Amino acid sequence: MFKPVMLALSLTVSASAFAAPSNEPIQPIQPAKVTNQAKVELGKQLFFDPRLSKSGFISCNSCHNLSMGGSDNLPSSIGHNWQQGPINSPTVLNSSLNLAQFWDGRAADLKEQAGGPIANPMEMGFTHTLAVDVLQSIPQYRESFKKVYGKNAIDIDQVTDAIAAFEETLVTPNSRFDQWLKGDKKALNKDELAGYQLFKDVGCTACHNGSAVGGNSFQKMGLVEPYATQNPAEGVAGLTGNDADRMKFKVPTLRNVELTYPYFHDGAYWNLEEAVDVMARLQLGRKLEQKQIAQITAFLKTLTGEQPSFALPILPPSTAKTPRPQPFN
Amino acid sequence: MFKPVMLALSLTVSASAFAAPSNEPIQPIQPAKVTNQAKVELGKQLFFDPRLSKSGFISCNSCHNLSMGGSDNLPSSIGHNWQQGPINSPTVLNSSLNLAQFWDGRAADLKEQAGGPIANPMEMGFTHTLAVDVLQSIPQYRESFKKVYGKNAIDIDQVTDAIAAFEETLVTPNSRFDQWLKGDKKALNKDELAGYQLFKDVGCTACHNGSAVGGNSFQKMGLVEPYATQNPAEGVAGLTGNDADRMKFKVPTLRNVELTYPYFHDGAYWNLEEAVDVMARLQLGRKLEQKQIAQITAFLKTLTGEQPSFALPILPPSTAKTPRPQPFN
Repeated sequence: MFKPVMLALSLTVSASAFAAPSNEPIQPIQPAKVTNQAKVELGKQLFFDPRLSKSGFISCNSCHNLSMGGSDNLPSSIGHNWQQGPINSPTVLNSSLNLAQFWDGRAADLKEQAGGPIANPMEMGFTHTLAVDVLQSIPQYRESFKKVYGKNAIDIDQVTDAIAAFEETLVTPNSRFDQWLKGDKKALNKDELAGYQLFKDVGCTACHNGSAVGGNSFQKMGLVEPYATQNPAEGVAGLTGNDADRMKFKVPTLRNVELTYPYFHDGAYWNLEEAVDVMARLQLGRKLEQKQIAQITAFLKTLTGEQPSFALPILPPSTAKTPRPQPFN
Repeated sequence: MFKPVMLALSLTVSASAFAAPSNEPIQPIQPAKVTNQAKVELGKQLFFDPRLSKSGFISCNSCHNLSMGGSDNLPSSIGHNWQQGPINSPTVLNSSLNLAQFWDGRAADLKEQAGGPIANPMEMGFTHTLAVDVLQSIPQYRESFKKVYGKNAIDIDQVTDAIAAFEETLVTPNSRFDQWLKGDKKALNKDELAGYQLFKDVGCTACHNGSAVGGNSFQKMGLVEPYATQNPAEGVAGLTGNDADRMKFKVPTLRNVELTYPYFHDGAYWNLEEAVDVMARLQLGRKLEQKQIAQITAFLKTLTGEQPSFALPILPPSTAKTPRPQPFN
């Protein structure tokens, strides 16, 4: 009974994909295909578990809050001991569609990314070894990892793999714009449509394209006119040492951009209208009129998709053997 | 069609209540009866919304984490600017059953309690006025409050009322112990039953009784033998100035005690076995044997009930008018 249903679903998805205008620079977000539910459930627990931090207080969800567009809505994040992070937390939503992770792309994929904050002294302030020790001390975690990975010992590779598997489910299909792309011509109003036309005509789609409306290239922030910022981040140049890579950052996705303020790598702009104005001037040398900005912003708000919906995970309790959190030392 | 179903449900609950042995000092937890679903949903959003804090980072759920037994599993909580809280965060689970709120009972009920942390400079570090300003700037919140309270302006009374309504749903029925109480004699094993018998015989039920297994009286911590602690909290004496009230604290609920470590008002004990040993010595003048401690602990673990299960709430986005969070100043 189950297989024919899956087949029908798969045919529906294909039909929808065909319905999307092939000449548009933006493609609809595809729903997540979960192949290993147990791994996703384990990853979800880990994503919400603050015991992966030294303090026992900070989880992945602290800065990539799934109640708030997968971001923390702060210019830069609060880390261990209330340290101020160096850069704006990118949304975890649709992050599986990025060509690489972090603003400078220093992690190839979500699995590699997931290990970063755990061991970063400015963020979760822990070590991979200690995080694994915590998980290994909890019988329910041992059981879940064994079920998913078939090994007797937990290692950091399994931890980051499970977190990445959960994050891959965090896509936001069925936005009003995607409904329009798939053929529902009533899904957008006149201003939103005009905004989309402007978005293409002005040249935004040169970088903000594909299903994530971004996330698939590195570009210089301040191409036509330099970007004025207090933030010392150098972008890709921080990795390559190449002058040509200075201020080159991964183009952020514009999916759910209404939810992921403040904007840019320094989180300096809180209003989407202002961010649109700045981008048009600095990247494209265009001074947009207020009405144009309002229309593009109206279009951008149609990119808010269905937010991931799931029950808050319940975490297995620590045991007498679990290393204790160290919030204040 | 709907009413007869509700009636049947109500009859079932009554039948279960009758099935509980009337001569036991502990009664089963009753499931929550939601009379105003819209208010509960609004309260759930507020409970998870870090914009009720100055930093935009700390929500009710930060220290009463519903993934972790409604507590933060820290000796004392982390507040604004990583300040160390003065006392262990009590669980929010079944807190509607407490005779009063906070360890010293200084809030009469959940509604009064909910306003405390928002405005406490050591906790969320905000003010009631600013918190209301934030909510008032968000159209979806304005709409939800109007729907629930029928007024054009949000005030702190509505905010704390909605949070309290959500918290009232956070009960944990159907623990194995409650199944046993309701007549399922196979719900507990021999050691757990022996532990319950000891729990009564030794005298724990003098204070830990009722459906919350505590929460219904204030008692002196260190009745027979003084409690050694670095924590300066004076209990009820801090409110009354009465010497007789020194070290008098609200007896904590033992429901879900397996999940709410570390224990006591100073969070000094991480292992339930040790906490049982300390309580028996200091409150009852009894030195328990290891086996007795193990049996009582086994019984206590049968008090873990069904954890509240609900979809992670999605929060409405801020607007250009929303006061910005101030995490670092």
